[in-house]
Amino acid sequence: MIEVLRIGHRPARDKRVTTHVCLVARAFGAGSVVVDTADRSIERTVEGVNRRFGGDFRVRTGVPWARHVRAFQGTKVHLTMYGMTLEDAVLRIPKAAPLLLVVGSTKVPARVYGLVDFNVSVGNQPHSEVAALALFLDRWFMGRELRKDFGGRLRVVPSARGKRVLDSEEEE
Amino acid sequence: MIEVLRIGHRPARDKRVTTHVCLVARAFGAGSVVVDTADRSIERTVEGVNRRFGGDFRVRTGVPWARHVRAFQGTKVHLTMYGMTLEDAVLRIPKAAPLLLVVGSTKVPARVYGLVDFNVSVGNQPHSEVAALALFLDRWFMGRELRKDFGGRLRVVPSARGKRVLDSEEEE
Repeated sequence: MIEVLRIGHRPARDKRVTTHVCLVARAFGAGSVVVDTADRSIERTVEGVNRRFGGDFRVRTGVPWARHVRAFQGTKVHLTMYGMTLEDAVLRIPKAAPLLLVVGSTKVPARVYGLVDFNVSVGNQPHSEVAALALFLDRWFMGRELRKDFGGRLRVVPSARGKRVLDSEEEE
Repeated sequence: MIEVLRIGHRPARDKRVTTHVCLVARAFGAGSVVVDTADRSIERTVEGVNRRFGGDFRVRTGVPWARHVRAFQGTKVHLTMYGMTLEDAVLRIPKAAPLLLVVGSTKVPARVYGLVDFNVSVGNQPHSEVAALALFLDRWFMGRELRKDFGGRLRVVPSARGKRVLDSEEEE
């Protein structure tokens, strides 16, 4: 079980990036996402994707983040520019326990570093929490997450020359 | 040589996501990024990261995208939800020729699919062009990009318990 916690979400500025965080969490094998600031539009977007593409990915917003980190039963991992390397982390983090992956926005409160079990750096250059989350999950699941079957109404069929989408409601 | 082409950039809505695209391109081993719509603030952000963290990553905005794709000398790859799998693509795309990676925003004009040599799908679920680009580059470079030395003034040192940054100007 993997949960993603997005902290520092500002609805006016971060709506699109936080939506990307949520959709990457869902597409790459996490089971749920929690966002610190309340934002119904994020919840609606993710629920709409679930309805069309399947799965039971859960999203909650407006959850106080520090309390959530403290109460989490499992391994707490902060994805950052400053931490142990991704390669080391994937070897050292226990595979069996639930995992909380914390991703921040532009500025992350300093106390996050002390509240978690692992600070993990996906590369040592500034880039993107969306990319950090995607790479962590891809390395964690060793690529298997890209073949996961969500069982949804809409299914995308790999096709070299363009869109092929099956709609199970149209077929019947 | 890898260049990333970001199409469909709307400065008012996409500034943050396009910035993530640019920083992921830079951090994960591409040499340059081209954005279709003019946006000086994106250029300034990337140039500021170059100054502090090193490297010679290039950014241009306001470049008509269709002409740019047609004129590109090399292999043109569109990252999308609809295409051949990432695993197949990494095996089939020639390694020696220059590579243009096209990433769209919310809606991609249908003719993009026909203008490129490969449409590549990073998973078959809706997620994020930032994540798609990161995963493509990580698979393409087989993780070596995460250890690239940019030779910049600021260097982040991997550290399990928090921030360690060396500033070469302060050392002298």
